[in-house]
Amino acid sequence: MSERKMVHKITHVTVRDVRFPTSLEQHGSDAMHTDPDYSTAYVVVHTDSGLQGFGFTFTLGKGTEIVVCAVRALAGLVVGKSLQEIVSDFRGFYRLLSSDGQMRWLGPEKGVIHLATAAVLNAVWDLWARAEGKPLWKLLVDMDPKQIVSCVDFRYITDALTEEEALDILVKAQEEDQMLKEGYPAYTTSCAWIGYSDEQLKQLCTDALKSGWTKFKVKVGADLEDDTRRCRLIRQMIGPDKTLMIDANQRWDVSEAIGWVSSLAEFKPLWIEEPTCPDDILGHAAISKVRGKFGFPADSCVEDLFFHFIVVILHPFVVMLLPVCPHAGGVGLCELVQHLILFDYICVSGSLSNRMCEYVDHLHEHFTSPVVIHDAHYMPPKDPGYSCEMLESSVKKHQYPEGDVWKWACVKFEINHGEHGDKKACLHLTHLYFERLDVVDVDVSVSQSVNEVARLTELKKKKVR
Amino acid sequence: MSERKMVHKITHVTVRDVRFPTSLEQHGSDAMHTDPDYSTAYVVVHTDSGLQGFGFTFTLGKGTEIVVCAVRALAGLVVGKSLQEIVSDFRGFYRLLSSDGQMRWLGPEKGVIHLATAAVLNAVWDLWARAEGKPLWKLLVDMDPKQIVSCVDFRYITDALTEEEALDILVKAQEEDQMLKEGYPAYTTSCAWIGYSDEQLKQLCTDALKSGWTKFKVKVGADLEDDTRRCRLIRQMIGPDKTLMIDANQRWDVSEAIGWVSSLAEFKPLWIEEPTCPDDILGHAAISKVRGKFGFPADSCVEDLFFHFIVVILHPFVVMLLPVCPHAGGVGLCELVQHLILFDYICVSGSLSNRMCEYVDHLHEHFTSPVVIHDAHYMPPKDPGYSCEMLESSVKKHQYPEGDVWKWACVKFEINHGEHGDKKACLHLTHLYFERLDVVDVDVSVSQSVNEVARLTELKKKKVR
Repeated sequence: MSERKMVHKITHVTVRDVRFPTSLEQHGSDAMHTDPDYSTAYVVVHTDSGLQGFGFTFTLGKGTEIVVCAVRALAGLVVGKSLQEIVSDFRGFYRLLSSDGQMRWLGPEKGVIHLATAAVLNAVWDLWARAEGKPLWKLLVDMDPKQIVSCVDFRYITDALTEEEALDILVKAQEEDQMLKEGYPAYTTSCAWIGYSDEQLKQLCTDALKSGWTKFKVKVGADLEDDTRRCRLIRQMIGPDKTLMIDANQRWDVSEAIGWVSSLAEFKPLWIEEPTCPDDILGHAAISKVRGKFGFPADSCVEDLFFHFIVVILHPFVVMLLPVCPHAGGVGLCELVQHLILFDYICVSGSLSNRMCEYVDHLHEHFTSPVVIHDAHYMPPKDPGYSCEMLESSVKKHQYPEGDVWKWACVKFEINHGEHGDKKACLHLTHLYFERLDVVDVDVSVSQSVNEVARLTELKKKKVR
Repeated sequence: MSERKMVHKITHVTVRDVRFPTSLEQHGSDAMHTDPDYSTAYVVVHTDSGLQGFGFTFTLGKGTEIVVCAVRALAGLVVGKSLQEIVSDFRGFYRLLSSDGQMRWLGPEKGVIHLATAAVLNAVWDLWARAEGKPLWKLLVDMDPKQIVSCVDFRYITDALTEEEALDILVKAQEEDQMLKEGYPAYTTSCAWIGYSDEQLKQLCTDALKSGWTKFKVKVGADLEDDTRRCRLIRQMIGPDKTLMIDANQRWDVSEAIGWVSSLAEFKPLWIEEPTCPDDILGHAAISKVRGKFGFPADSCVEDLFFHFIVVILHPFVVMLLPVCPHAGGVGLCELVQHLILFDYICVSGSLSNRMCEYVDHLHEHFTSPVVIHDAHYMPPKDPGYSCEMLESSVKKHQYPEGDVWKWACVKFEINHGEHGDKKACLHLTHLYFERLDVVDVDVSVSQSVNEVARLTELKKKKVR
């Protein structure tokens, strides 16, 4: 029995569409994604030993069902395998998922299939770390470098990095002590989403400064006048010595980016993130040249190209080539990325020079082991796994479309508007109704009429029956 | 009534998963896709006037249901719009599909979402051409250049090509007469799929030479010895003056590609297609350098980067930058691409120099207006539309998993093997059973036993009841 437990044969894979109505309050809004409902395709890998692995991939709401569908298609490749079998040839397992002769046409390292593959792989890494009773970063730090290298598929990258070169780089670069004591430096994106008012921005910035934050990212790109005002405001708030970054989320053409960035240069941003199409390497080079003139580093955009490698799939060797400041935020990306930055510091770079990790202060309350930030630093997680597990109550409530948050949104939506109403106002009300039940009776201004609240209350009672 | 007809309001969009069991006979097999079942997500756009638009996107079997799911997600953006409304701002319509604030996270021009968007756009172009009573190429050729330009989204490409520059290039380059008389030159990929035997290759090559083919593409990349033998064989068959191309379908690392290509240089291929990861621009440049030494053109790989633009989404201006030899094949890609090469010749390039279009001789019989090849040339299609419509009987029979071809495959599969049997053999039998009913009784060698055929026959009778 105990030996059987060690094998952890995967019996089935479940996947759920979980969405948080963040668009209601413009959390996460930027120049390209004005109304995101932060969401996940949430995967649980079940084994015959009872041990479970949790994983997810981050989405913006609509279309999450497509990723769910893709996870189901991949699940067939996973069920029946044991954890033991997988970890004894992780590279082969990665290839199995990413190189299926029929399915690779749809990806394999692009868009929906990429996201679905990541969700499954994250769940398997979580399972592995739990089986070993360690947080993922510690599993990696304690692992024989040869085994780490054996997990990585080097197809297409051997001209940049061979297996042997990777092995040479992969040494114990630092002890863990400093991380355990001080944590890994972070910057915050929570203060300046594009949909926030100036008042909100000021308040959040004041709070952040009090909590010890020294590096701030501002979303820009939709309107230059607006961006200028907001960058000026935040630079005034934080003073000349603290760090400001700007992020256009792919909004611009190359020439547009050059003009815009020149205009915002007076606010001394450290970098301009995703100025144009992330695939346009020559375009990034052209923008970098101009940025060079204004004194911001010319290579900072390159960071974005590694986003998917770092955050979504554990492909750690890419971090060896350049200092990387990983993205995070969304739902649970901070929970994931903290393991990778620790691994980078302890086993690869051994340096904090030019390194920091994004932090966004949303939705952590839905996780069983939420990220811990202390004095603007990520503190190393201690629970076994990849910090991917969500509270079952949160998953149930936010499951789309049958969870309470969304079911009631739909009921309300239909009552008010048939098929063509103001979905956002309706969601807003529903959100208030469920999240802050006590304020609904007073805050009727958000609804069209008191009657509607009364009707909704009745319907809810009926439902609870 | 007649005025209402002109508007063509879209009432609903249907999408079906249609798969052809091509893996049975190794049609379409290459170094990365060893067992493809050529498939489509097949879209019909229905309007209140009764006019329908047909479109599809090409897939390799497994996972087509994910694209179907994505088309359903996009359909919500299309239903309720009229054709008139769409064509009066086609650029806006493209942006609507590709820049949805929540869904673009999953793409927007990548993988599943890209494929789904293409299927919907193809159906709308088909609808437009049918409404005008013209084949698509003729609709484009007759269109005011300003209107053509207004259909294209220039986001991210203005540093390479502005709207004004596009307009300057877009002139009547040639009359239609030559195309109508002689057609557009093609090359064939039908002779040398990687899974074909040498005998089969010889026979197909002999037949192709008799039919006037002068340019041949060979799939390579899995095994160098094998490739050498097959390239030698085909070069012997076609002689030194005819054209040979090789295609590795992304199989190699950069250094592997350089070695392999050097070895196959003696057979004087015109180009090496997809030698490595299509995103690796520097890798392609490195491979091109070596190829230069052996005398094949250094820019031929670049062709692949445009594949999706040309074949899947009508983004015609990219063809202005370099001569393009578009891919085709699969299911219906030849039907689509013939419209684009005609448009290129008549309105853009006016030249056949270094230009030819791929042709593959499979599955055309399932289309209502199949492609016409005469003396190794594509002859201009005359029926209204984008040649996307499939025979309803073919769609029904091949719909997955409920179509006869697949339903019977499943029945047979379960009878023989429970969940773990030889799916391919089973499909083979089913295929024979339905496609060539008369030979089944004699060709029992493909089944495990006569009894099984008898049982299947009984089951079929029951089904027909």
